[in-house]
Amino acid sequence: MTTRHRLGPHRDPAVDAAVLDAARALLVEIGYGATSIDAIAARAGVSRPAIYRRWPSKAHLIAQAVFPDVGSAVVAPDLLAEVRKVIRGTIQLFGSAETREAMPGLMAEMRQDSGLYEKLSARLDAPTRGELGDYLGGDAARPGLDPNTVLDTIAGAALFAMCIRDIDDLDGFAASLEDLLLYGILGRRPAD
Amino acid sequence: MTTRHRLGPHRDPAVDAAVLDAARALLVEIGYGATSIDAIAARAGVSRPAIYRRWPSKAHLIAQAVFPDVGSAVVAPDLLAEVRKVIRGTIQLFGSAETREAMPGLMAEMRQDSGLYEKLSARLDAPTRGELGDYLGGDAARPGLDPNTVLDTIAGAALFAMCIRDIDDLDGFAASLEDLLLYGILGRRPAD
Repeated sequence: MTTRHRLGPHRDPAVDAAVLDAARALLVEIGYGATSIDAIAARAGVSRPAIYRRWPSKAHLIAQAVFPDVGSAVVAPDLLAEVRKVIRGTIQLFGSAETREAMPGLMAEMRQDSGLYEKLSARLDAPTRGELGDYLGGDAARPGLDPNTVLDTIAGAALFAMCIRDIDDLDGFAASLEDLLLYGILGRRPAD
Repeated sequence: MTTRHRLGPHRDPAVDAAVLDAARALLVEIGYGATSIDAIAARAGVSRPAIYRRWPSKAHLIAQAVFPDVGSAVVAPDLLAEVRKVIRGTIQLFGSAETREAMPGLMAEMRQDSGLYEKLSARLDAPTRGELGDYLGGDAARPGLDPNTVLDTIAGAALFAMCIRDIDDLDGFAASLEDLLLYGILGRRPAD
């Protein structure tokens, strides 16, 4: 039976939810380093094996806790809306207290475990790089823009502002970044 | 005597250099996590106390190893040259193999140890934020640009591209980022 996975088809989704909730709470309370599988299991009231049946490592668990599967995002109607959507979405994603705590640890893990990088990249980056690339190749954008550079710039600006400079004004930062990048992408004032 | 510091005025600079060289080599060979004070001391041929007399923690040592004091940079003659200098300098700084390994660990430490953040920020960010802020307030830039956003964007883009996407083409990335941000800052083609 090819559909029968090692993790089993009948696992209890309430356990997943309790573990992910516990991980998010612990990240904020005690930080990434101290948020061990043991601490998460104790907080969620589940066993260590119940966790290891679901996630191959602490980093994979934390990655799912801070970057949940939310399904496909709404497709933006044009380049402007697309860039704004990516900027707002990325800042929301990196702006939560638990993601700020988790990112340095996940970045360290991704350098050791390329499977984690590929999993996160496929889920978070790749669809956006494709969608943004289509719009950047169209008439609305200046020619020659690299979607990788644009996405590194949006994600990196959010990462630096949230995880290093640790700013609180997400809306103000989003507006300022939109202003800078929409001009850079369009080559003119967005309202023109 | 107020000039007599705990670390003493007569320490041997050859020991500092050997320790910092050892730290950089180990970061590339075994990663941030395994680069312990013990491993650095053994590699450099110095004692643990010799290291702790010089640096309060592993993170402070690593920070100095990957972000050495290079003195004041040349002042750029205009806004364009300033932005280009900051972009090229930041990409060079984050592009080395040892800085790519060190950044996630230093980011995690900076969240625990605000003294480390302040020390690095004062040395690396503050002078550039001031210089860039002066130029962005001048006639050459579009009005209303926030130097914090511009610097978060440059540093963050370099951080994401080097430490997460792990790209190798530093010159190509610098050119692409310059194109995007100079347009965004000037509101027009830089050559006009």
